[in-house]
Amino acid sequence: MTQNDIPLIDTDIHERVSYEQILDYLEEPFKSYITDCQWIQEKHMPYTQPSVGGVDRADAIPPSGGPAGSDLTFMQEQLLDDIGHEAGILTSALDPSPSSMHGWHEMAVALASAYNNWQIKEWLDKDERLYGSVHIAAQERDEAVKEIERVGSHPKMVQVLLPIDDIMWGDPYYHPIFEAAEKHNLMIGMHHNEPPVYYGKWPRYFIEWHTLIPTAHMKQVTNMIFNGVFEKYPNLGLIMIEGGFTFIPHLMWKMDQQYRDLRHEVPWIKRKPSEIMKQHVRFTTQPAEELTKKEMLSLIEQMGTDEMLCFSTDYPHWDYDSPTRALPPLDADLKRKIFSQNAKSFYPKLPNTEEE
Amino acid sequence: MTQNDIPLIDTDIHERVSYEQILDYLEEPFKSYITDCQWIQEKHMPYTQPSVGGVDRADAIPPSGGPAGSDLTFMQEQLLDDIGHEAGILTSALDPSPSSMHGWHEMAVALASAYNNWQIKEWLDKDERLYGSVHIAAQERDEAVKEIERVGSHPKMVQVLLPIDDIMWGDPYYHPIFEAAEKHNLMIGMHHNEPPVYYGKWPRYFIEWHTLIPTAHMKQVTNMIFNGVFEKYPNLGLIMIEGGFTFIPHLMWKMDQQYRDLRHEVPWIKRKPSEIMKQHVRFTTQPAEELTKKEMLSLIEQMGTDEMLCFSTDYPHWDYDSPTRALPPLDADLKRKIFSQNAKSFYPKLPNTEEE
Repeated sequence: MTQNDIPLIDTDIHERVSYEQILDYLEEPFKSYITDCQWIQEKHMPYTQPSVGGVDRADAIPPSGGPAGSDLTFMQEQLLDDIGHEAGILTSALDPSPSSMHGWHEMAVALASAYNNWQIKEWLDKDERLYGSVHIAAQERDEAVKEIERVGSHPKMVQVLLPIDDIMWGDPYYHPIFEAAEKHNLMIGMHHNEPPVYYGKWPRYFIEWHTLIPTAHMKQVTNMIFNGVFEKYPNLGLIMIEGGFTFIPHLMWKMDQQYRDLRHEVPWIKRKPSEIMKQHVRFTTQPAEELTKKEMLSLIEQMGTDEMLCFSTDYPHWDYDSPTRALPPLDADLKRKIFSQNAKSFYPKLPNTEEE
Repeated sequence: MTQNDIPLIDTDIHERVSYEQILDYLEEPFKSYITDCQWIQEKHMPYTQPSVGGVDRADAIPPSGGPAGSDLTFMQEQLLDDIGHEAGILTSALDPSPSSMHGWHEMAVALASAYNNWQIKEWLDKDERLYGSVHIAAQERDEAVKEIERVGSHPKMVQVLLPIDDIMWGDPYYHPIFEAAEKHNLMIGMHHNEPPVYYGKWPRYFIEWHTLIPTAHMKQVTNMIFNGVFEKYPNLGLIMIEGGFTFIPHLMWKMDQQYRDLRHEVPWIKRKPSEIMKQHVRFTTQPAEELTKKEMLSLIEQMGTDEMLCFSTDYPHWDYDSPTRALPPLDADLKRKIFSQNAKSFYPKLPNTEEE
């Protein structure tokens, strides 16, 4: 039994990996730093976990014993077959993402490559429904470009995944990454990776940090647009993952207001920011707040388009969104767009048989 | 001729002062650091100014020659008499606010006191329509409490003004400030003072910084609510000044969602955050984005209350909002609330003859 009447394009699935699992993909000498030198990756979050399953659904821990999201067979049964996925986009990385590592950048570069190889072999090659994200270590920008060149033409790699942290990605320093992505028909996906929401300091509570993740997404969209990324790379798209969507009308109104008053400062921006967003920027829906149908429709009307939202489950995280319960009941055409067509129209490398 | 059919309560008017003007109010030895030792206050903004008037309306520069907002007589003519203000709340401080000074806290404490004395004598005592804000130097928390005790009972001081910068005001360390404010029937006003919107780093452009000011407001509201300020001080209110209002529905939905899932972490919060906001938190309208009447009404419906918004002009800033043009046409009852009654109901020390 599938749970969904529309075959889903799921824009945020977290596969998981332990260092042991990617050791065989990691070059020396980096492998031996883990096996022989007790290297462990930096971790920061100073809070208790949000649920009894940690950051994951307790029922998503596979019988094989690894962490939630680490067993393809179990994920196929629990998620892809059960929901009836047409496709799902893998969005995990090591924790933190290589681009969020604060020292020893060569190790970050090696981990990103190992991760990409592991992802292709262990996930993308084994289930035709799964599509992947190119991980990079952007501290070494030129190495990051080489990594995009190395794996970006893989037919199932659909985006370059950038962590939302303290790097502002619109800065011209990072534009070669966008140039390489555009060349390979890859979109840019951004997913938060412990952004320091209180000016580099942690809030006292997880609930504060988690409430404010959308502010980190708002910053990146603003930064990418006003730094002219989409004027420079007209075929590039940006998808903001796991930040929700109810802030979009505010951000469109605010950017347009500021553009009206202050565009003399950024003369290379030739269109209203809301128009740039409508063409180039998409948002995954999870974690969707509890909205009535009327609220949902008023938000879409405020956005001025129903083509910006792409459904995501965020499996196997603790705050997973079910395709049958996360959004209010929607009419067939809107439902088809949010659950399937908007993602197909956005990612050039997804099969798009429905294209009009 | 007045421009407004409802006598306005203007919740954000910037009076201005130069160091020369407050020298007579400043204690020694601090006065001589300015007169004899060339002390100047730190300044940060690395951008060009937003308009030909700098950060101010060019036409608000008084004939007397001082900066915009520095001449009471001219402000009376251009703003209070012309618009037909019933009351206006002064919200300026030295630039940056004493609480945003990063060193030499004794100087900040002295400047805050001098400023309060100057404000009372030169502005509040001279126009019955004007109400004031208590300025403090919160780096010296206990001195800040003393300053609130010293001037907080002045009949025309209606709030303690806290700058939005890198201090998270909900932290229990600052609660004695709220205790003192509540004791004197003062509300808490928060106004941004160069918040480091990109994690302590400046964006490349003023337009990015200015677009993202609301994210700094969202952080403070979240921090104040989840740190239990309004459970601890039930008569305290918070008004967010010059951050606009179109992000409010998002913030209410998001906080309620997080509260539903994560309230085990903050068990002292007994009500939904949106309910706390409706009771305790207000927002001044400026800078209002360009909204249709339909958009404005859908936002208010999403908020679930029409009592959270208080009109403000932000005179004499460059992006001043005119009471006759900043908002779309509204029905009489809603207009009365936004332009007058909501502020009267919020500030206990404002005359409130219309109270129901």
